[in-house]
Amino acid sequence: MNASTALFSFNIQASQGDARAGVLHTPHGDILTPVFAPVGTQASVKAVTPAQLNELGASLVLANTYHLYLRPGEELIAELGGLHDFMNWHHPLLTDSGGYQVYSQAANRSISDEGVIFRSHIDGSTHHFTPEKSIAIQEKLGADIIMTFDECAPPYDYEYNQRALMRTHKWAERCLKSKKRSDQAMFGIVQGGVFSDLRRKSAKFISSLDFPGHAIGGLSVGETKDEMKSMLEIVNAVLPEDKPRYLMGVGTPEDLLNAVIRGVDIFDCVLPTRLARHNTAMVPKDKLNLTNAVFAKDSRPIDNTCTCYTCQHFSRAYLRHLIVAKEMLSATLLSIHNLHTLLEFVKEMRQSILDARFNDFVESFILGKHSGK
Amino acid sequence: MNASTALFSFNIQASQGDARAGVLHTPHGDILTPVFAPVGTQASVKAVTPAQLNELGASLVLANTYHLYLRPGEELIAELGGLHDFMNWHHPLLTDSGGYQVYSQAANRSISDEGVIFRSHIDGSTHHFTPEKSIAIQEKLGADIIMTFDECAPPYDYEYNQRALMRTHKWAERCLKSKKRSDQAMFGIVQGGVFSDLRRKSAKFISSLDFPGHAIGGLSVGETKDEMKSMLEIVNAVLPEDKPRYLMGVGTPEDLLNAVIRGVDIFDCVLPTRLARHNTAMVPKDKLNLTNAVFAKDSRPIDNTCTCYTCQHFSRAYLRHLIVAKEMLSATLLSIHNLHTLLEFVKEMRQSILDARFNDFVESFILGKHSGK
Repeated sequence: MNASTALFSFNIQASQGDARAGVLHTPHGDILTPVFAPVGTQASVKAVTPAQLNELGASLVLANTYHLYLRPGEELIAELGGLHDFMNWHHPLLTDSGGYQVYSQAANRSISDEGVIFRSHIDGSTHHFTPEKSIAIQEKLGADIIMTFDECAPPYDYEYNQRALMRTHKWAERCLKSKKRSDQAMFGIVQGGVFSDLRRKSAKFISSLDFPGHAIGGLSVGETKDEMKSMLEIVNAVLPEDKPRYLMGVGTPEDLLNAVIRGVDIFDCVLPTRLARHNTAMVPKDKLNLTNAVFAKDSRPIDNTCTCYTCQHFSRAYLRHLIVAKEMLSATLLSIHNLHTLLEFVKEMRQSILDARFNDFVESFILGKHSGK
Repeated sequence: MNASTALFSFNIQASQGDARAGVLHTPHGDILTPVFAPVGTQASVKAVTPAQLNELGASLVLANTYHLYLRPGEELIAELGGLHDFMNWHHPLLTDSGGYQVYSQAANRSISDEGVIFRSHIDGSTHHFTPEKSIAIQEKLGADIIMTFDECAPPYDYEYNQRALMRTHKWAERCLKSKKRSDQAMFGIVQGGVFSDLRRKSAKFISSLDFPGHAIGGLSVGETKDEMKSMLEIVNAVLPEDKPRYLMGVGTPEDLLNAVIRGVDIFDCVLPTRLARHNTAMVPKDKLNLTNAVFAKDSRPIDNTCTCYTCQHFSRAYLRHLIVAKEMLSATLLSIHNLHTLLEFVKEMRQSILDARFNDFVESFILGKHSGK
């Protein structure tokens, strides 16, 4: 165990089947798992203040290396005391490596074993990312958890996934080698698309590198629910039980539940805040698009069982009015509700595992009785 | 004294020269004067939640009859329990009459003694406002303070102002006659452009109608500072001292100070939130446009003497990053700062009047020593 793993010990407090409730200790505080991390792509969880995030009970927040490298630049953030100070989030932070954003956002990608040359989605300027560069940027940013630089591939292309996996594995080793800071935990990322053999191979290789935590990448990118479940089972059968498992980019209550059942501990997703900016409220196993005229005179809150600030104080009719009148407050109030919904859902899952009644929780969710909060 | 004035008693606690510190009692709580009212045009103070407004110490909030009549409609707001419940502001509310908005926002205005026919700025539909209709709408909305329907005129057109004043006075009488609710205070509005005789005449006529409070309209619309001061002196020499005086649409620290010196108690303005959405922070006797590259690496808060949430937690560099990255959080954080700046400025003026040191306050502001907060 090296210095960084000592700072990042993970204790499993209770488990039921493969589901577990744990605590991940970080230099900026404990993360109670399962945990959902709101996403602050550009060092801001869109439309909410850190004070509001804190009231929502968020612990871990994710930011994006690709975006922050391009704007405002990791040097500036480092000069201003690092990402925690810059964005005023003094709880745990995680940065992803930029691998997924280079795949999804950048233009004119050109990938070699060395790294990726791409054009900025902002101004078209040319940039070069390597595993070493990604880690150097993440060390400047200073999040508690940093990620290896990986190559994402379209989920159904076997040849592509096979090639990408080779690179992802070599890059994981290079990331480890280039790591300098001891106060950051680096998680390795398992890839392999929807292919059992590739996922198994990747999980074996990545877990052999002795990372303090492991991530599962390349899911929730177009594959079916059954494929996601199957990949999680294959990967988590290989990944060591005593280290935290992070399923990247997943954010519906159903997906979270299915992943916790299969031993996942950490999640992040833009879904709650993105839906909010698209006028959509998350409700138990469903969504409400509040633009709909049916809500024009609806005096009820989004969800009458919800305890969030929005549901305690505002009607659907008011929220619809804000949307129609193009008032930015709608994005804030819907983000608060959607984040609360996911954070509470995960908190309730966690409590049910601690109370040895997770099976009941799962059953009531499936039967539609569970509130989803 | 009728039922509505009883609910709205105004007590002057201290005065220095013409400046006074008072308390205006309303059914939704006391307003400590001088007071600055943030503007929630469409039943939302843009980019801030009522909880944030509350933390800022706001008491009175203004909303717009013209906008709320067009969208979502006063009937809907009444069905949902009135404006306080609708927008979740359980402190005092004031609605203006729509007179100014018909003048500034609507298209194809056609004004007669009966009222105004205009086209909606939203969808071009035709509408008819009369004094009676404005009051009926304001009674549906249910604010604590409502305003008479007036005709605004370009400040330098004597003939126009003379004609408009005749209508404004007749309309004020019609507003009074049509008023039904006893739990709302109706303020009469003095007009008259930059013309001493018209202002004096208007102040005399409006104060003869025994409103529980008086407003001064048609200033801060293009006239000079000296003209504004002069009109305030003329009008306030006539308006009774024992009733609150409201200068509509004024929102710079300098204008507020000049008006308090001349006996004004109440102010409203979109300036702090509008500047915020235009990336501009209010600082003592100045403004900072945070888009400017000079702030890119500036680790200081907007104002290092400011105690607002934004200045306590965020650097100019971070705020500029949010602006450049088009993150909506910038509007929220700048609105919080700008509203705090004005609310604290007015609070300090009030305290200096209570402490019989208002002259020192004025002097130190003029000499630039005062922080403006």
